[in-house]
Amino acid sequence: MSKPLILVSNDDGITSKGIRVLVEVMKELGDVVVVAPDSPQSGMGHAITIGNTLRLSEEEIFTDVVAYKSSGTPVDCVKLAKHYVLKDRQPDLVVSGINHGSNTSISVLYSGTMSAAIEGAIEGIPSIGFSLCDYSSKADFSHVKEYVRQISRQVLENGIPKGVALNVNFPPKRNEAIKGIKICRQARAKWQEDFEERYDPNGRKYFWMAGNFVNFDKGEDNDEWAIANNYVSVVPCQFDMTAHHAISQINNDWNWEDLKANL
Amino acid sequence: MSKPLILVSNDDGITSKGIRVLVEVMKELGDVVVVAPDSPQSGMGHAITIGNTLRLSEEEIFTDVVAYKSSGTPVDCVKLAKHYVLKDRQPDLVVSGINHGSNTSISVLYSGTMSAAIEGAIEGIPSIGFSLCDYSSKADFSHVKEYVRQISRQVLENGIPKGVALNVNFPPKRNEAIKGIKICRQARAKWQEDFEERYDPNGRKYFWMAGNFVNFDKGEDNDEWAIANNYVSVVPCQFDMTAHHAISQINNDWNWEDLKANL
Repeated sequence: MSKPLILVSNDDGITSKGIRVLVEVMKELGDVVVVAPDSPQSGMGHAITIGNTLRLSEEEIFTDVVAYKSSGTPVDCVKLAKHYVLKDRQPDLVVSGINHGSNTSISVLYSGTMSAAIEGAIEGIPSIGFSLCDYSSKADFSHVKEYVRQISRQVLENGIPKGVALNVNFPPKRNEAIKGIKICRQARAKWQEDFEERYDPNGRKYFWMAGNFVNFDKGEDNDEWAIANNYVSVVPCQFDMTAHHAISQINNDWNWEDLKANL
Repeated sequence: MSKPLILVSNDDGITSKGIRVLVEVMKELGDVVVVAPDSPQSGMGHAITIGNTLRLSEEEIFTDVVAYKSSGTPVDCVKLAKHYVLKDRQPDLVVSGINHGSNTSISVLYSGTMSAAIEGAIEGIPSIGFSLCDYSSKADFSHVKEYVRQISRQVLENGIPKGVALNVNFPPKRNEAIKGIKICRQARAKWQEDFEERYDPNGRKYFWMAGNFVNFDKGEDNDEWAIANNYVSVVPCQFDMTAHHAISQINNDWNWEDLKANL
């Protein structure tokens, strides 16, 4: 049997620690090609480069792995991989990360790591974004390797439902071992921003944005609960953003007679 | 009764034609505050500014309307409006656009216009993104004004379901009048990229990305069908990206015995 082809990307940039760990694990599972941003792209969400040029160059960064760095966003990298670098061979798996920091709950929308995985799903490729819920500069990735390997194996062997990408978050390394894996829903939470005003040397005002995470969710079936309780969270994410339940509600709520009378 | 407070943003930038039309209509419906990017931000998706500073300054651009331009993304603009400019008064409505170009189907993920509206929904504010499906430089916005007014009125009067933002797309101006409004689902489609290779004056390679829209959807209940048939499409969009149907499927598909044995 031929080895599966695995595309690796991320949003922390091609020289980050997390992508090195991910490449190391993926080399055991298949042929690996890396296309990743040349600089950190955290918080880029599903941004793509419109009206500007893109750079892409092959780099010897990982041992025995073909790797390209790009000036683009994480989603640009997946597009460049799918439609240029790997034009003649469809990847069997897209993995993104391992992100240095949490991508649970609403962060899935802001996350370049997850947007790369979702772009893979749009292309019909089983895709996974991995994130470690530890922001410390010395974050330890050693306790998650076996989970990355086993989850990726399950996806290679069993696939994932069509149109779905997995958002996998790992708890930080704690004194006790990880308790297991929970397939979850996205927790109901948001980022509540503070803007700190400062003045530059020319006396002109600028701002730093600081986000505080607020969790409104009291359930035990969501990713925030899983991480807080030392489980790996796996949220299946879809790119169909339609609120299907709201279609009939809006049709019922709107005053169509009044609306039509004014058009 | 006091007038509603309406926050206006966009992704084409504060000097674009579409936002001028939107502000003009909103002034009839309430008190308007504009916070919009100082330059075009198309394709920025749900990107936010992390690890860098933000500028924000008040500008006299619109008659009798308080307006701020920002160096940030559309989502940054909504965050700056909600947590800084309008700290003491929650907007009753967030409107974004009118985008110069289509945001139907999968484009909702890449669109800064829609991401601004979705950020409004995350903040619990009824929110609408408006887009005109016409890329020509002389795009005519005159036929959509009354629709913008009436849809916004319906939302101000009847609200929209919690956690939902509306993705409203208008057909281009045609010889026949718009036929009406359809509440739709997001069409199943994707952008298929071509990358054109060029060389800069120093002989170094760069790329231009060109997207070709591919519609796989044969239904008549989706936004692509509505626009093609000269209807206004309204898709309720949610920020819960969980593929709820996939949770039980993954729990059934994975070989948990094998997985646990290896951990």
